[in-house]
Amino acid sequence: MRDGQLLVDDIEAISPQPGQVIAEVIACGICGSDLHALSHADQLVEMAEVMSAEAGPFAPAPMDAARDVVMGHEFSARVIEVGPNVTSLTVGDVVVSLPIVMDSGGLHALGYDNTYPGGFAQQIALSEVLCSKVPNGLDPHLAALTEPMSVGAHAVHKSVITPKHAAVVLGCGPVGLAVIAALRSAGVETILASDYSASRRALASVFGASELTDPAVESPIAIWRRIDGRKPLVIFEAVGVPGMLESAILEAPRAAQILVVGVCMVADSFRPMIAVGKELNLQFVFGYDPGEFADTLHRISEGEYPVSQMITATVPLEGVADAFTALGDPDSQAKILVTPNETPSLPGTV
Amino acid sequence: MRDGQLLVDDIEAISPQPGQVIAEVIACGICGSDLHALSHADQLVEMAEVMSAEAGPFAPAPMDAARDVVMGHEFSARVIEVGPNVTSLTVGDVVVSLPIVMDSGGLHALGYDNTYPGGFAQQIALSEVLCSKVPNGLDPHLAALTEPMSVGAHAVHKSVITPKHAAVVLGCGPVGLAVIAALRSAGVETILASDYSASRRALASVFGASELTDPAVESPIAIWRRIDGRKPLVIFEAVGVPGMLESAILEAPRAAQILVVGVCMVADSFRPMIAVGKELNLQFVFGYDPGEFADTLHRISEGEYPVSQMITATVPLEGVADAFTALGDPDSQAKILVTPNETPSLPGTV
Repeated sequence: MRDGQLLVDDIEAISPQPGQVIAEVIACGICGSDLHALSHADQLVEMAEVMSAEAGPFAPAPMDAARDVVMGHEFSARVIEVGPNVTSLTVGDVVVSLPIVMDSGGLHALGYDNTYPGGFAQQIALSEVLCSKVPNGLDPHLAALTEPMSVGAHAVHKSVITPKHAAVVLGCGPVGLAVIAALRSAGVETILASDYSASRRALASVFGASELTDPAVESPIAIWRRIDGRKPLVIFEAVGVPGMLESAILEAPRAAQILVVGVCMVADSFRPMIAVGKELNLQFVFGYDPGEFADTLHRISEGEYPVSQMITATVPLEGVADAFTALGDPDSQAKILVTPNETPSLPGTV
Repeated sequence: MRDGQLLVDDIEAISPQPGQVIAEVIACGICGSDLHALSHADQLVEMAEVMSAEAGPFAPAPMDAARDVVMGHEFSARVIEVGPNVTSLTVGDVVVSLPIVMDSGGLHALGYDNTYPGGFAQQIALSEVLCSKVPNGLDPHLAALTEPMSVGAHAVHKSVITPKHAAVVLGCGPVGLAVIAALRSAGVETILASDYSASRRALASVFGASELTDPAVESPIAIWRRIDGRKPLVIFEAVGVPGMLESAILEAPRAAQILVVGVCMVADSFRPMIAVGKELNLQFVFGYDPGEFADTLHRISEGEYPVSQMITATVPLEGVADAFTALGDPDSQAKILVTPNETPSLPGTV
């Protein structure tokens, strides 16, 4: 990302610092946040600053949108060089990692940093202590979905949901699908998913939604009232555009919890009075913790999540800019993988 | 309230239905919601409609702002007539009641109803089963504060706060003071209260705040960071004007809970991205339950809450309109009691 545009260019090769490995990227997914970063870089920087104020010395280095950024934070990679003091990884190991790399100066957010390249590069530096080895037998392309699937697991963990609740999932993009899969893993049986796109609704069914709806026809909360109004409701907002929250608040039943998983980058408006009158709870969530990340990798390797179904295209580096554009059409695309070191091998190209 | 104006007029006398008593009002506090109702009647009606949609047959009858409404829902009263089937109350009993009266047609919200008068009347109908007798020895004027003090108890119960947390209370009007008192009762020691008004800050100290601040000088959250940043923070927003929520979200530390106790009647705007980045939890609260109401009456009767300090004036019915105006000045007024059946007897008139 240079001056708000995507391009492919040569950058300087990186060498491993102590505790780091260099790995060649096998696959790296394109995330909704990457699209936000391209169109709302300033807001992303402000959000990072707000979060940094809390994290103090553990805050990742701030991103300067005026300088080059190699995005990509949903990756799997093969170790090609091992730095000093690395003991648990060797050349050839296939790993995933939390999208953070540490050096003696502090933390860097892979994909949103000016020093270290993210996963839309051929080679990346990773911190040994943040890597997890991909189990034998798991396709590394599928392992790259550990990061986005962890977001769903975290949202479910942060909610009050139990198998005695019903869930509504607003939006069946990759975040919504990850939430649906995690809800199913948590034993939730009534999962009402909505999306305007028929193909995304079909994916939601594969991931475990029990009821599907086009919100233009009937809202999922209306369906909950009709078929299952006795179970208390938790609503997962996985769209993140202005107006979604107000709409969810207006429709929510009394005492419902709303998980805000979609990241709305611009100011949004709602009427607090309505939320007060219903005593709603809004839980905003972000990211995941290392335990959720490792657990998600394990579940993917056990075949618990049908992640292969989510991958709608695989593109080389030269295809990233077009892929960003293509992701604007939810009927044709869900998750696009970038494979910087290979020609497309999985079905589908943009 | 007639056509958006306050006036004193004669209305038809009421007779007790089965299960009801008629009581003469001893004292009835003026609530911020009453002020809202006068200036935002339409929004109040809409809020009631949203809540009614959830409550079904248990929803109070809708208020028609185009017809007369006798407001007042924070009252104590003396029973003067007992209806059929009433067994536990007799003439002369002094009671408080949840501001709801039931009849064979359903529920009515006292103070926001076109059929039954609220506490700014000389006589009101009450449902026996919703009444609590005021203990001997408790001044009925103080018992009238059971309702607003219950709001604070409920907000604290709905929060995650424990004695290991710190609390910030934004706004030291009657709602903020009720929250502070309930926090103290819950064993919370670090209570940072803010208000632009010096007299309200002084009241906050009497009610149990451990630190006071004028937000124009230093925000209470800044003080928390300075003196007590180790205890996790719960923030109580008790102002309810546009912009307060965005301001609290911007200042809140990571993973904080914000209780929205103040009722903002108009649309408000904030940036969800900031709340997402910090994983904030927003709990909207409203009212109280019968157990909290009874418990609050008990605590007032035990002298646990210094409610007498909150009463800044007592006015007859003819003084209600001026009292509404006077409540716009937080430096001179906190809680004004209306005494429809007596001349002012407590210190201070408007």
